[in-house]
Amino acid sequence: MKECTSGRVTIPTDIDVVPETLELVKRWGADAIRDCDGTDYPEELKHVDAKVYSTYYTTRKDNEWANANPDEIQQMYIMTPFCTAVEEKLSIHLMDHLYPDMLKVNDRDDIKRWWEVIDRTTGEVVPASNWSYCPQTGDVTIEHAAEFHDYTVSFLAYIMWDPVHMYNAVTNGWTNFEKQVTFDVRQPKTHKYSMERLRKYIADNPHIDVIRYTTFFHQFTLIFDELAREKYVDWYGYSASVSPYILEQFEKEAGYPFRPEYIIDQGYMNNTYRIPSKEFLDFQKFQRREVAKLAKEMVDITHECGKEAMMFLGDHWIGTEPFMDEFKTIGLDAVVGSVGNGATLRLISDIGGVKYTEGRFLPYFFPDTFHEGGDPVREAKVNWVTARRAILRKPIDRIGYGGYLKLAMQFPEFIDYIESVCKEFRTLYENIKGTTPYCIKTVAVLNCWGKMRAWGNHMVHHAIYYKENYSYAGIIESLSGAPFDVKFLSFDDIRKDPSILEGIDVILNVGDADTAYTGGENWTDEVIVTAIKKFIYNGGGFIGVGEPAAHQYEGHFFQLATVMGVEKETGFTLNVDKYNWEEHEHFITEDCAGEIDFGEGKKSIYALDNTTILVHRNKDVQLAVNEFGKGRCVYISGLPYSFENSRLLYRSIIWSSHDEENLHRWFSSNYNVEVHAYVKNKKYCVVNNTYEPQSTTVYKGDGTSFDLNLGANEIIWYEIE
Amino acid sequence: MKECTSGRVTIPTDIDVVPETLELVKRWGADAIRDCDGTDYPEELKHVDAKVYSTYYTTRKDNEWANANPDEIQQMYIMTPFCTAVEEKLSIHLMDHLYPDMLKVNDRDDIKRWWEVIDRTTGEVVPASNWSYCPQTGDVTIEHAAEFHDYTVSFLAYIMWDPVHMYNAVTNGWTNFEKQVTFDVRQPKTHKYSMERLRKYIADNPHIDVIRYTTFFHQFTLIFDELAREKYVDWYGYSASVSPYILEQFEKEAGYPFRPEYIIDQGYMNNTYRIPSKEFLDFQKFQRREVAKLAKEMVDITHECGKEAMMFLGDHWIGTEPFMDEFKTIGLDAVVGSVGNGATLRLISDIGGVKYTEGRFLPYFFPDTFHEGGDPVREAKVNWVTARRAILRKPIDRIGYGGYLKLAMQFPEFIDYIESVCKEFRTLYENIKGTTPYCIKTVAVLNCWGKMRAWGNHMVHHAIYYKENYSYAGIIESLSGAPFDVKFLSFDDIRKDPSILEGIDVILNVGDADTAYTGGENWTDEVIVTAIKKFIYNGGGFIGVGEPAAHQYEGHFFQLATVMGVEKETGFTLNVDKYNWEEHEHFITEDCAGEIDFGEGKKSIYALDNTTILVHRNKDVQLAVNEFGKGRCVYISGLPYSFENSRLLYRSIIWSSHDEENLHRWFSSNYNVEVHAYVKNKKYCVVNNTYEPQSTTVYKGDGTSFDLNLGANEIIWYEIE
Repeated sequence: MKECTSGRVTIPTDIDVVPETLELVKRWGADAIRDCDGTDYPEELKHVDAKVYSTYYTTRKDNEWANANPDEIQQMYIMTPFCTAVEEKLSIHLMDHLYPDMLKVNDRDDIKRWWEVIDRTTGEVVPASNWSYCPQTGDVTIEHAAEFHDYTVSFLAYIMWDPVHMYNAVTNGWTNFEKQVTFDVRQPKTHKYSMERLRKYIADNPHIDVIRYTTFFHQFTLIFDELAREKYVDWYGYSASVSPYILEQFEKEAGYPFRPEYIIDQGYMNNTYRIPSKEFLDFQKFQRREVAKLAKEMVDITHECGKEAMMFLGDHWIGTEPFMDEFKTIGLDAVVGSVGNGATLRLISDIGGVKYTEGRFLPYFFPDTFHEGGDPVREAKVNWVTARRAILRKPIDRIGYGGYLKLAMQFPEFIDYIESVCKEFRTLYENIKGTTPYCIKTVAVLNCWGKMRAWGNHMVHHAIYYKENYSYAGIIESLSGAPFDVKFLSFDDIRKDPSILEGIDVILNVGDADTAYTGGENWTDEVIVTAIKKFIYNGGGFIGVGEPAAHQYEGHFFQLATVMGVEKETGFTLNVDKYNWEEHEHFITEDCAGEIDFGEGKKSIYALDNTTILVHRNKDVQLAVNEFGKGRCVYISGLPYSFENSRLLYRSIIWSSHDEENLHRWFSSNYNVEVHAYVKNKKYCVVNNTYEPQSTTVYKGDGTSFDLNLGANEIIWYEIE
Repeated sequence: MKECTSGRVTIPTDIDVVPETLELVKRWGADAIRDCDGTDYPEELKHVDAKVYSTYYTTRKDNEWANANPDEIQQMYIMTPFCTAVEEKLSIHLMDHLYPDMLKVNDRDDIKRWWEVIDRTTGEVVPASNWSYCPQTGDVTIEHAAEFHDYTVSFLAYIMWDPVHMYNAVTNGWTNFEKQVTFDVRQPKTHKYSMERLRKYIADNPHIDVIRYTTFFHQFTLIFDELAREKYVDWYGYSASVSPYILEQFEKEAGYPFRPEYIIDQGYMNNTYRIPSKEFLDFQKFQRREVAKLAKEMVDITHECGKEAMMFLGDHWIGTEPFMDEFKTIGLDAVVGSVGNGATLRLISDIGGVKYTEGRFLPYFFPDTFHEGGDPVREAKVNWVTARRAILRKPIDRIGYGGYLKLAMQFPEFIDYIESVCKEFRTLYENIKGTTPYCIKTVAVLNCWGKMRAWGNHMVHHAIYYKENYSYAGIIESLSGAPFDVKFLSFDDIRKDPSILEGIDVILNVGDADTAYTGGENWTDEVIVTAIKKFIYNGGGFIGVGEPAAHQYEGHFFQLATVMGVEKETGFTLNVDKYNWEEHEHFITEDCAGEIDFGEGKKSIYALDNTTILVHRNKDVQLAVNEFGKGRCVYISGLPYSFENSRLLYRSIIWSSHDEENLHRWFSSNYNVEVHAYVKNKKYCVVNNTYEPQSTTVYKGDGTSFDLNLGANEIIWYEIE
C-alpha cells in the first residue's frame, strides 16, 4: 500500500513565521494554511502551494459600521437576579454583575413591549404600567410590589463587545486593541451592507481559497461578570440570537404573541437540560430557517466569487443546527470544528450535506499550554487518541491546528509528534474512506432533543467537564467510538411514528430526572410509555442510566420501574420492606477488573423482588438487570468515560440485545484495545487506546483469533482475508 | 433531700415468677404490675400492694365472636402490584405476595363499589363493567385492557390474623396456639357486644386496677408477605381502619363520594412522607372524632366500674392522635408507650389531657435480647441514657418494662442496673416535677403535618433506623433533649393565621424535596413563602436541612434559595459559573472536633455568591449560612443524631437567633455533657450522656462557671443559689 505523504492537514500561520510555515507544509504534509483571531496572513505565503483559508467574521471586525448603526448592534435577552420586595417600591439595577463594556441596556426599542417584569412568587407578569426604567440610574422601579414577592426583569441588551473577542483578549492579555462591537446581519441595513462587505473582502483578498466563516450570525450564549470572569455559558444557547426585528417576524410566523419569557425561561434560558417548550421549539425552527436562508446568501456569493465556503462549528453557529434539514440548504462546502473528545469529533464528522469536514485539534497554540514547563505533547496525545476512536467510526476528512505557530515551533517534540499524527491520520483515512464501519448493533439514545443534539447530550460548554454530568456524558463518549450505529431519537419522533423503533436493538435513556435528557413528563404520555414497553417486551434492549424515565406520577418515580426492576426511594416507599440485596456475577461485568467507577453514582436506588443486582454500594443499587417479556433492561447509576467502562457499556448492549454468543466478533479481549472492521474495503485495524504497550487476543469476524502485542497508542492495520 | 425509694415503676409478671416479682417490687420500687401478650397474671399476686395493670385487647382474643360474625371482622385496603397488560385480557391475582393466613379477600360487600381497578398508565378508573372477580381463582380479570398499560386492583381484605399477634407469634416461635382473628368494634353488632364484653371482663377480674387498652380499634398498617416476613409497615398508617360501614358514614359526612384511591393513594397509602390530600385529611379528622367517641364509651365504662383507663400508644392506636383536640375528649387516665429514643419519649410525655404518662423502656424481655451471650445491660443503658435527655425536658410520670420476667432474672447485672435507673428516675422526677425546664429559644418544625406528627417526623416504624431518613430524624432526636420550646407547625397553620409565627425564634424545615416533611408545592403558595420570608427578614432564624423548601417552580428548586443562599444543581443551572467555594470558620462549627458527620449528606448543592460556606465536600455544599434582612439562615445537608451534631444544631439555633453572646448560659463546654435548669424549683442538673467519664466547664444562668468531672452516665443535681 502506497503511503500518502501529504494532504488533509491545515496549519495556522502569522506574519512572523513564514519559514516555519513552509517547513511544516513539508513535514506535516499540510495542504491548507489559515489565519486566526489575532494573527494576520503573511504576504509571502499568498502564492504557496496550499489552500489558503481566511477567517471571516460576519458579525464583527467592523466597528465603523457597528458604531454608525447602533440600532443594528446584536442583542441578547438577559434576566436580572431575583430581587425581593421588602416594601411597595422595588428598584432593580439591570447591569448588576454584568461586565459593563460588554453589554448595554437596549432602551431604544419599546421596552414595554420587549421587556418583561415578572413576579416570580406568583409567576405573573407585572403590568407595564406598574414599572418604569430610568436610563440615568439603570434601574427598573416597580410600584405596588407585593411584599416579599421576588421580581425579575427580562430585558434586551446590545452586545457591545463580541464575547469571543473578549475571551481571546482576556485569555491572551491583549492590550492596545479596539473592542469589537457586534452587528446583526439579519437586520435590513446590515444585511445589505454585509453582502457588499463580503464581496469587497473577497475582491480584496484574491489569494484566499476558502472563506472560513466564524461563524454566521448568532453567538452561543456567553456572558462575563463584572470581574471579566465567565458568568454564563451555553454552547447551545439561543438567547443572543434575538432582536425586536427578528422577534416581530417570529411572532407573525408563530401566530401567537411573543413573550420574552419564551427566551428567558425563568432564567434557565432554555438550556439543553430544560424540557423544551413548544414556543422555544417554534423559535428554534424559525431561526434555523432564517439563518439558513441568510447563510445561503453568503455562501452563494462565495461560490459566485470562485471560493469555497467553510463554516466553523462554534462561536456564532447558533441557528445553523447541522443535523437538521435546513442545514443542507445553506450549500456549504465544508464544516470545521474544534475536537475536544470523541463526542465532539462525531459532532463534526456526522454532519451531512457538505463536501468535507475538518477537525481542529487541541492544544490550540496559545500561551496557556505553550509556555515554559507546559506539556503540549501530552495534551496532543490525549486529544488525538481520544478522538481517534471516533474517527475510526466516522472519519472527518481533514485535521488541523490553530493559534500562534511561533509558540508551537518552540516545542520540537510537539512538531515531531504531530508529524506522526498527520501520517497516521492519512493512512487511516485512506483505509476506511467510502465505507461504513461494521456496526454490531443499532442503538438509539432517547431524549427530548433527538437528532438536533446528536453527540452533544450532556454538553454545556464545548467538551468541558462538569461534575454533575460527566457520569452521563461518559455514555455518549463511549458510544462515539463504539461499533454501533447510533441514533438520537426524540419523544416527538416516537409520537409522530412509533414504528421508528423498528430496527433498533437497544434504547438508552441517560440523565437525571425531569431533565430533557431523560424526558420528565414525556413518560406520563401513554403513547411514549407503551411504545417503549412494547419495544422491550418484544425483545428490545433498554439501558437506563442515572434516573431514566423518571417523573413522579401514579405510584412510581421511575415510570419504567416494573420493567427495569429498579425504583428510587424518595421517601414514599420507605414503608415497603426490601429484601433483594444480593449481588450477582454477570456477563456484563465479566471484564471488570476491580471496583467499577460509577462516577457520581446514585443514591436511594433499590431493586424490585425479581431483579438481578450486579452491584450495590451500601444498599444503593448501581448496576442491575431485569427481563421483561422477551426484552432485557440494564440499569446503570452512572458511567464516566474510561476504557473499562466502555467495555461495560459494550457488554450491556450485547447482553440487552441477546447476543452474548457473538461477543467475540471483531473484539479484543483487553478492553484497552479496540478492533474496527471495514468490510467493504477488506480492512480492519487493532488500536491501542492507551499510552502504554498492551497485549490482547484479537477476534476476527469469523470468531478466529490471534494474540497481539501493541506499542503505546499503536494502530495496526490488517487485510480481511 | 429525702430520697424516694419506691414508686413510678411498672414491671411485668407471669404465673411462673411470683417470688421474683415480689423481689423486684422491693428492689426496683415497683408500684405497678402488668401482664403481657403471651403471659398470664398469677393468682398469688392479685392482692399484692401494687397497682395491677391488665392488657386488654379490644379487637382480638375472642375468636368465638369473630368467627360468628365474619361480616364484622376488621378490614384493610390493599393494592396489588402493578401488572402490565400484554393483551386485551389481564388477570391479576389479589393475594400474590401476601401471607395467606393473615388476609382474606372481602367479596362479601359490593366489590364494584368498594374496589377499584385503575389504569396506572393514564390514572383512569377502569369501568366496573370491564372487570370481574372470580372467588375460585382469586383473580380480577380485566377485559379490553389497553396494551402495555399497567393496572392495579385496590380491594378490601379481612384481617384474619391480628398482625401484632402474628408478629409476636413469629418472633417468639410460638406453637400450638390459635391465630387471633380481629373484629371491628366500630360496627354495630361488635360495638354492642364489645361494651358487654368489657363490663364482663372487669367484673371477672376484680383484682385489676388499670385497664391497659392495647389499644383501641385500628391497627397501624402492618402486612406480612408469603414467607411471613414483614412486607409493609407504617406506624402512622390508616389503611387498616376501614370498612364499608365506616366509609359510608365518612362519605355522608364528607359530602362527596368516597373512592378507594383516597386510602390507596397510588399504592403509597398516604404514608407520612406523602403531602396529605384534602380527602385523606378529611378522613383522618372523621376517624379521630369517631374513634374518640367510641373510645370514650369504653373509658366511661372503665370509670363506672371503678378502674383506671390507660392507652398503649401502639398497635391499634390509629385514630386516637394524642396531639389533636379530639384526644382529650376520650377521658383517659394515662398513656403508656414504648420508648425507643428521645423523640419517642416526647411522643408520650408531651401528650396532654391525661393524668399521667408512662414509658415502656427497652429492652423488652424477649429471647431476642435475653439469651446466652446477649447484653441486655448495654441495650438498657443506651435506651435509658438516650431517653433521659428527653425526660429532662419533659418527663414521663412513670417508667416500666415488659416481656417475660423469667428471662430478665437470669441476668443479675441487668436487674442491678435497672434498680439504679429506677432510683435515678425517681430523683429526677422529684426534682423537676411541676416545672417547665428553662427554654433558651422557641423553635418550630414546619411541615405538612404540624402537631399531628409532633416528634414523629421521619419515623416510619416506631424508632426504627432507615438509611434514607436518619440524617433528618437526627434533628428531631436532637431537639427532643435540647433546651428549646419545640413547636410543630403545619403550612395550614400558617395559612389560617400567619401571626402564628410571632414568638418563634427559629423555623426548621427538614427533609427531601416534595415530601410532606419539607412541603413541596406548599412553597409555591405565596401566603406561605411570603410569611416565611417576612419572618426571616424581620430577624427570624431559618434552618433548612436536606432539601428545604424544595419544589421546582419559577426558576428555583429551593423556593428559599435567595434567602438561604444555597440552591440545588438539577442540571438547569450548569451554565452558571460558580466561584464561591471557600470554606469559612464560624461560630456554628466552633465545637466540631473533626470531620462533621452529615450522614447521607446531599449532592449538587451550591452556594450563591454572598453565602458563607462552612463545609463543602468535593464541591457539594454541606453547611452554609446566609443573612437576609435582619434574619439568618443555616443550611445543613443532613445531621444524624450524635452529641457533637446536637451541639452543631444548638449553635445553629443560637446563631440564627442572634444570641451568640448568651451561648454560655446553662451550658457545658464539653458537648457530651448537658445542663438543664428548672428555675422554678431552683434546681439544675449536669448530665453526662456518654458511657465514659467526662470533664467539662459548666456555665450557670448568670454566666459564672465551674469545672466538673463526671462519671460515666452520671447525672449531678445542684441547687440554684
